[in-house]
Amino acid sequence: MKTLLLHARTFARIAPRLKGLNAALNIVTVDDAQRFHDAWTSTALETPPEVHLAFGNIDAFYSPSVREFMTAILKSPDFDWFQSAAAGIENPALVAIGQKAKRYTTNHTQAEAMAEWALWQALDFFRDGPGHRANQAIAKWERIRVREMNGSRWLIVGYGSIGQAVGKRVTALGGVVTGMRRTPGPAEGAARIAPPDALMAELPGADVVLLCPPHTPETEGMANAGFFAAMNPEALFLNLGRGALVDEAALMAALDAGRPAFAALDVTQIEPLPAESALWRHHKIVITPHDSSDTPGTIARGDETFLANLRHYLDNETLKHLVDRSAFVTG
Amino acid sequence: MKTLLLHARTFARIAPRLKGLNAALNIVTVDDAQRFHDAWTSTALETPPEVHLAFGNIDAFYSPSVREFMTAILKSPDFDWFQSAAAGIENPALVAIGQKAKRYTTNHTQAEAMAEWALWQALDFFRDGPGHRANQAIAKWERIRVREMNGSRWLIVGYGSIGQAVGKRVTALGGVVTGMRRTPGPAEGAARIAPPDALMAELPGADVVLLCPPHTPETEGMANAGFFAAMNPEALFLNLGRGALVDEAALMAALDAGRPAFAALDVTQIEPLPAESALWRHHKIVITPHDSSDTPGTIARGDETFLANLRHYLDNETLKHLVDRSAFVTG
Repeated sequence: MKTLLLHARTFARIAPRLKGLNAALNIVTVDDAQRFHDAWTSTALETPPEVHLAFGNIDAFYSPSVREFMTAILKSPDFDWFQSAAAGIENPALVAIGQKAKRYTTNHTQAEAMAEWALWQALDFFRDGPGHRANQAIAKWERIRVREMNGSRWLIVGYGSIGQAVGKRVTALGGVVTGMRRTPGPAEGAARIAPPDALMAELPGADVVLLCPPHTPETEGMANAGFFAAMNPEALFLNLGRGALVDEAALMAALDAGRPAFAALDVTQIEPLPAESALWRHHKIVITPHDSSDTPGTIARGDETFLANLRHYLDNETLKHLVDRSAFVTG
Repeated sequence: MKTLLLHARTFARIAPRLKGLNAALNIVTVDDAQRFHDAWTSTALETPPEVHLAFGNIDAFYSPSVREFMTAILKSPDFDWFQSAAAGIENPALVAIGQKAKRYTTNHTQAEAMAEWALWQALDFFRDGPGHRANQAIAKWERIRVREMNGSRWLIVGYGSIGQAVGKRVTALGGVVTGMRRTPGPAEGAARIAPPDALMAELPGADVVLLCPPHTPETEGMANAGFFAAMNPEALFLNLGRGALVDEAALMAALDAGRPAFAALDVTQIEPLPAESALWRHHKIVITPHDSSDTPGTIARGDETFLANLRHYLDNETLKHLVDRSAFVTG
């Protein structure tokens, strides 16, 4: 019988959905106090269990027991399947698990919450949130003429699950979306698709430029001085991808020079961002602590992804969002 | 020949669209320096002109020459048609014009920009904008679990042009909208329509309660202590209607008592809001200075409304959004 490893909070949430599987599956949990238990009997385990499958979500990876969770997987001699709650696979912990697991599947439902982050930042920029808040702080009643989402032109660099989730919403609100990716269009939520080599030609025409491509040697540092110099001076720069996509010094210099107008970053080169970083204090930069996907909805959708794949697993069907093992080969 | 009065900025913007009408129409302008001109020849007028029609938009009403604009209309012996750029008619200046004009038409395209204000405020609330900004101010990297627009439940009190513009957008983003109005549904952008007498029953189930009904004796002060006590403690209160709809002291007391969670007001009982008002300084209230509709898009859509009605006027067709004259009878 296979053994499934879950964080205790995850088990508590989805236990009713797992009840029919007793015959097919042992379930063990790890809690925030680094303790392992048999999930159904609550019996404490003396030693870390050997496990065959695991669901790695926010409960596990942002837990004080993340090390125990990882170690149980990496020390199990016959670890078979890992379901990630994330879309990305380049985090070192995920690479280690990917090299260990016979099968590794990703999840793309974080995109929904991340897309709302992009709308939030764009509306606060178009509406001059900083200007309105500064006026409120000094009790100043002064109308500010602001811009609209309706009719705004978006360039979404990397038109995968995140890009499309943003694109669909922006299009629904009257924006005009260009998605940038290798695979030609059409694609949902985009008025058109442009190839990556059109980047410099597309940048000047965008009111909002959103980065969400995968982190690869080609995309690393792509948002550099030349990139920012090609943007519209009235435009907003957003990063929902990886901090490594952006030359942060170049971004601050570009904002100081007046082009682009503003930036919002959910990811930074070093995370957590050190308190001494000038990014925190730049008046044209909004920083959020890589929490754009951190909603109850993301957790619920991640659970659904895992449960659906678990059914496929137990029925010996093909898993969804299976990653090719070559993706985890390093060196 | 009829004489049309426009603000000079309005004329400058739409002159190309008016060129074919020379034979049918005199056009005079008033500028921010209180001067009247013949629009096409730029000849200054010695005395305020007699006018027959006028377009009253943000250019005119937020101009230093608003008094001259008003006086020209009110002193003209045969004033025929006034096109307002606003939907509301209860402003005293508009009432005076409404009593004077043979025909008075409204405009409902401000709703588009106002709807984006509601999305902006809701996203900043759901995403904990204040919490994120406070953390950035002290360089604190701390994930905050936030809520989603997707699945949020909205009660929109007053389901006219503004309410529907909000409802369509919220629905497109996955929210669930109840529109409240006398006329039964269905209505665009709303999952269902509830009658005004269901207010107290509907308030507890809403994550966002938005006020945008007309200001009438029935709606004045409707958001009172009992209203707020019926709201969900986690909910957001929004007012895009009129300040007079809200008992502001009751709102502040309710926020202090923890129900609702937060409020954003684009309108206040006294406008401009005096600097000494406690509303400015309440940490659970966002104030914007009645500028939710102040976008270039609003101005452009207002121009289109006027130009379309001007064509109807010159062709002796029925004008759109004609207000019944009894609306301006004061008691």
